[in-house]
Amino acid sequence: MSETQASPMFQRIALIGIGLIGSSISHAARRAGLAGTIVGCSPRSETREKAEKLGLVSASYEHASDAVRDADLVLLCSPVGTYAAIAEAIGPHLKAGTIVSDVGSVKASVVRDVSPHIPQGVHFIAGHPIAGTEQSGPEAGFAELFDGRWCILTPEADSDRLALAKLESFWRKLGSQVEIMTPEHHDLVLAITSHVPHLIAYNIVNTAAHLERVTDSEVIKFSAGGFRDFTRIASSDPIMWRDVFLNNRDAVLEMLGRFSEDLVTLQRAIRFGDGETLERMFAESRDIRRGIIQAGQDTAAPNFGRGSPTKS
Amino acid sequence: MSETQASPMFQRIALIGIGLIGSSISHAARRAGLAGTIVGCSPRSETREKAEKLGLVSASYEHASDAVRDADLVLLCSPVGTYAAIAEAIGPHLKAGTIVSDVGSVKASVVRDVSPHIPQGVHFIAGHPIAGTEQSGPEAGFAELFDGRWCILTPEADSDRLALAKLESFWRKLGSQVEIMTPEHHDLVLAITSHVPHLIAYNIVNTAAHLERVTDSEVIKFSAGGFRDFTRIASSDPIMWRDVFLNNRDAVLEMLGRFSEDLVTLQRAIRFGDGETLERMFAESRDIRRGIIQAGQDTAAPNFGRGSPTKS
Repeated sequence: MSETQASPMFQRIALIGIGLIGSSISHAARRAGLAGTIVGCSPRSETREKAEKLGLVSASYEHASDAVRDADLVLLCSPVGTYAAIAEAIGPHLKAGTIVSDVGSVKASVVRDVSPHIPQGVHFIAGHPIAGTEQSGPEAGFAELFDGRWCILTPEADSDRLALAKLESFWRKLGSQVEIMTPEHHDLVLAITSHVPHLIAYNIVNTAAHLERVTDSEVIKFSAGGFRDFTRIASSDPIMWRDVFLNNRDAVLEMLGRFSEDLVTLQRAIRFGDGETLERMFAESRDIRRGIIQAGQDTAAPNFGRGSPTKS
Repeated sequence: MSETQASPMFQRIALIGIGLIGSSISHAARRAGLAGTIVGCSPRSETREKAEKLGLVSASYEHASDAVRDADLVLLCSPVGTYAAIAEAIGPHLKAGTIVSDVGSVKASVVRDVSPHIPQGVHFIAGHPIAGTEQSGPEAGFAELFDGRWCILTPEADSDRLALAKLESFWRKLGSQVEIMTPEHHDLVLAITSHVPHLIAYNIVNTAAHLERVTDSEVIKFSAGGFRDFTRIASSDPIMWRDVFLNNRDAVLEMLGRFSEDLVTLQRAIRFGDGETLERMFAESRDIRRGIIQAGQDTAAPNFGRGSPTKS
């Protein structure tokens, strides 16, 4: 057991929130022997019980201020809308030298909400592992979630260099590659690679659910033509995603504006029967796909046929 | 070998087009012993050679008019934009009693383009298997593609009942469930369950590829947050999809209009910080997802983490 080894990277990790990401961090940290003890925190007793039963944490707490005592790494793994209150609550209980980080999908608002509550001598560096599934909760996690994926860290100009190096090393040992950028640039990049894709997936599922001339039953039966993939993305946690959009408004609205402009171009091409424009735009998007497969961020295996025994 | 069995359902099947769907029909028809002989047709010599080498067809032809000779089932499996010319070319060479069908993703325009060229005594019934992957070409096919999926047939009022029953039985033996509807209703249903999803997937990939403040390399590296799923859908065959949009204009524009209206609602909720609306709309879309899983049209297995050895 990694928990008994001589000197793990952190003596005590406190996971504030034990959902998909928190539980996956527990699995991956144990796999790599990075933690002496892992404790967790959730306001829901059901989640705490599950997390203890699954062996994700050796102790769990209702209040974050209790969970962070003696921790040398505190990771905020709850929806980003909860961070300000958590940071305020834990601030007085953090010991000097502790690293505080998070896994939230937005970064500028996190830095704004958390930094003011971090006492002198405690190192806050915001982070975001670009990994996940559409499932939620402590049972959803697994050790391999971060393998080969990217974790973005967004230190500030005065962030402690040793703390940054240690956090970077932690994520690499969880399986990730690490990239450093500003919180603002992170929010712009993620707006297009994650936030707007989720928004339009949620949107088309809602559009489909409220048609008069096509029934829900038809939408469900004939979903294998592309729609079902959107429903998978749109089954992600609603509260987490609400908080993402409330906290990355400007970048999301900018990218959404671009998306809508481009959609009007395609709409016009359809209206006026401009096959050349359609074919050109459809062919272009294959290049990005090739790049993603070459970069190891997806496989080329056909996934639409995933119900099939030989191809899934 | 099924080719030698006493009385298969069809003595000679002619596949006009041997891509993902044509090749999958060949695999599935052989699996079920439905064909005496399967021949194919492609204007590209490379495709013909591959199809013969893979054993998908026992003979292949450059011209559809040669491929359909003596066939008792002719299936158009090429992009729907090619159907009118093919139907005109094969019309004089079809023998009485032959069933002609297709696999195109739109139906009203197919009925319009093909019907006038079908001679008396030949039975044309349009069809559409709702199944596929994002891959193309004769190597992409597999026997299980249609298993448990739906095939929609769109007979006309005067369609031959026995021919319809036989075609329905053929698709069930390929592994499909079968639904009958009008071509117009098919086009409306598919506009929302397949065509608009593909359009917005193509669109966001193009939007992402033409940003000034986010590089292509960043889009690729950080694609695991949702974007990569859209690139998979957007890597489907550009010519096939061009033809779909050129031939289902009205239904696509109607559904796209609804999609855009609904997107404006979400956009306003983001702009004015209306978390209640966001959360409600995100939560609602989970219901449709549950329906799709219950109907066996997708699995609940988390797919975002598909790079992982334990979960993919």
